[in-house]
Amino acid sequence: MRSFMINPCVTNTQSPPILEARSWLSLYNGSMGAPIDLSQAAPPYAPSVELLERISTAATSPEFARYGPVPGEDTLREAYARHVSSIYGSKIGSASVSITAGANQAFVIAAMVVAQRGDTILLPAPWYFNHKMTLDMLGIEARAVGCRAEDGFIPDIPSLLTAIDASVRAIVLVTPNNPTGAIYPPSLIETCAEIGRERGIWLIIDETYRDFAASGGAHCRSAYQPAFSNGSIGLYSFSKSLAIPGHRLGAMVHPAGIAEQVTKLQDCLQICPPRAGQEGVAWALEGLEDWRTSKRHEFVRRANYFSAAMKDVPKWKIESIGAYFAYVRHPHQGESAFSVGKRLAVENGLLTIPGSYFGPQQEDYLRVSFGCLKSDAFAELPRRFAMADRR
Amino acid sequence: MRSFMINPCVTNTQSPPILEARSWLSLYNGSMGAPIDLSQAAPPYAPSVELLERISTAATSPEFARYGPVPGEDTLREAYARHVSSIYGSKIGSASVSITAGANQAFVIAAMVVAQRGDTILLPAPWYFNHKMTLDMLGIEARAVGCRAEDGFIPDIPSLLTAIDASVRAIVLVTPNNPTGAIYPPSLIETCAEIGRERGIWLIIDETYRDFAASGGAHCRSAYQPAFSNGSIGLYSFSKSLAIPGHRLGAMVHPAGIAEQVTKLQDCLQICPPRAGQEGVAWALEGLEDWRTSKRHEFVRRANYFSAAMKDVPKWKIESIGAYFAYVRHPHQGESAFSVGKRLAVENGLLTIPGSYFGPQQEDYLRVSFGCLKSDAFAELPRRFAMADRR
Repeated sequence: MRSFMINPCVTNTQSPPILEARSWLSLYNGSMGAPIDLSQAAPPYAPSVELLERISTAATSPEFARYGPVPGEDTLREAYARHVSSIYGSKIGSASVSITAGANQAFVIAAMVVAQRGDTILLPAPWYFNHKMTLDMLGIEARAVGCRAEDGFIPDIPSLLTAIDASVRAIVLVTPNNPTGAIYPPSLIETCAEIGRERGIWLIIDETYRDFAASGGAHCRSAYQPAFSNGSIGLYSFSKSLAIPGHRLGAMVHPAGIAEQVTKLQDCLQICPPRAGQEGVAWALEGLEDWRTSKRHEFVRRANYFSAAMKDVPKWKIESIGAYFAYVRHPHQGESAFSVGKRLAVENGLLTIPGSYFGPQQEDYLRVSFGCLKSDAFAELPRRFAMADRR
Repeated sequence: MRSFMINPCVTNTQSPPILEARSWLSLYNGSMGAPIDLSQAAPPYAPSVELLERISTAATSPEFARYGPVPGEDTLREAYARHVSSIYGSKIGSASVSITAGANQAFVIAAMVVAQRGDTILLPAPWYFNHKMTLDMLGIEARAVGCRAEDGFIPDIPSLLTAIDASVRAIVLVTPNNPTGAIYPPSLIETCAEIGRERGIWLIIDETYRDFAASGGAHCRSAYQPAFSNGSIGLYSFSKSLAIPGHRLGAMVHPAGIAEQVTKLQDCLQICPPRAGQEGVAWALEGLEDWRTSKRHEFVRRANYFSAAMKDVPKWKIESIGAYFAYVRHPHQGESAFSVGKRLAVENGLLTIPGSYFGPQQEDYLRVSFGCLKSDAFAELPRRFAMADRR
């Protein structure tokens, strides 16, 4: 009897680290008051009741229990094409839209369309850990391009250019960024698209948190100019914007010319996206525009509350804040992000995510997700952070 | 400006051929009566109303709109573990069960866990085309192991052994088979598991059509004996058995020891399976047992009707028939399966799927899916087939 081999690309991939951090709050004894969870990337509020009713109604239909179109429902693809056309100020047709089971799946598809084992994809670091995991499992090199705090964690062009060699197939930009919250300026996106265009390198823009940027996504417009759209793939998540992650829906915008390749991957990965949810989302793109706007404003308000509160603990420095997340430098140089994050959680009941979960050289940082905090809870934060400084 | 490279493993993968065949009926002029569609692998009937009501109720809940557990809902994993334990007569725990968005996704995960680019997986031919597509896109060699009509398209062991070399990571068995309908005998499965055990080669058993076998799946028991379960991965589809493909749910049974690897892949491919459907299916495994049994009996009856009807056109030979599908040899030697299939559809309004869609050396065959035919429609089949013989 021989042992059964497992793909080493998969065994060597790090498991999602977030679960371990989540367990820390269970070790907190409550001495500083109720625990405060700043770890969540999931929407902190319930979805619209009207949206759930529409999904529920679709789920009663035998029609939506059948297989649907592989690239997604026509109505949703058309609605999303209109939606992004209006955001980007550029005409995007439904042939350029594919519906996926969330933005993670959209990234897997994008990565597989453009690269194979032995190729390289550039990930500005800190990165979104599922991107790193996906590339590791596919045997595609995830090449880190370090971003600097003094640049607000915006990738810098000389570093990107240095990282490019003949094996590079794509540059990934996550904007608004997870974990830093940074919103990339149009000029950066345009420059990356231009670099890609000259070298035949794809630009993969993950806009999962687009709806939470104060601009509502207009920052991405430049990548969808006709001059660049041939080499751009945009990823998006209805899970975040409509607070329905359990219904598993996201989208890709891609050149119509690669639709056939995307469809082959979708056919194998899931045949079609789950259907009842698509029926609801096709309505919600217009029907819940005001709802999404109000959520956006709420997030922007909370970012302001968070910035204001942190002024009371100036040793904890907000290095970056934008949509959904802030990236905070802790004052304990030489202590790992893991150790600081665990102390904050276990001793002070304040859960953040260590920067080290997001790539190399992130030991000085913690990711903070402020969207779930009630407005009166922000005042409590300085005390919790400051207590970690007394040792 | 350079052109943007696309992964050649993806471009070189054949698109799902089934759509082209589906278009043939639109060219039929109706001269022989209403078109008869024998092409469908999807369930030809509506799902249980009670199941849809349960899914719909779950979809109204904000709780099921949140992220769920990556490997699937605990209730469903436990229910499926009980279900397969009873079918296989072997104790399988929920740690060995992962819920996927259908059996295609389960195959992608299984293939990625056991193999990477450069490795080989054995596919008995004719094969299920999404398996071939998945392996092609991953850069894994899909090595055909030809099955013979005189063996009822059951893979023969000497051919399997000949195909094994050091690069082989898994043997795939689809039973009941798509496209042939063949139900593999326990002795074959046991021998394959033993071959695998000796050489460290995984056995991937796709049981998508398990519920439609007269035995109800007991034929697979041997692969789940404790002696073999370390190297077996079972794939299954709730889409087929409960007629809810639009809700995208399937399952894997795997050694608990690889659960962590499976979970990493699930986390990247979709984070969690769609949730509302899982709530319904967890109930349906026991709650709709009688419903599924009645559907099974219906399929077995229709297999008998089909066999009886084809006695009137003995030149068209049923080479294999079992669950869901029959594999029929056409009498026009030298004419391609594509040509015969297209003539049947366009001239006689009878849609089948050419054998050539299922791998090499299948030009003499057509796949017939008889499940959608009303009992009085079988009598019409001989005339439609026979008309294709007059040229």
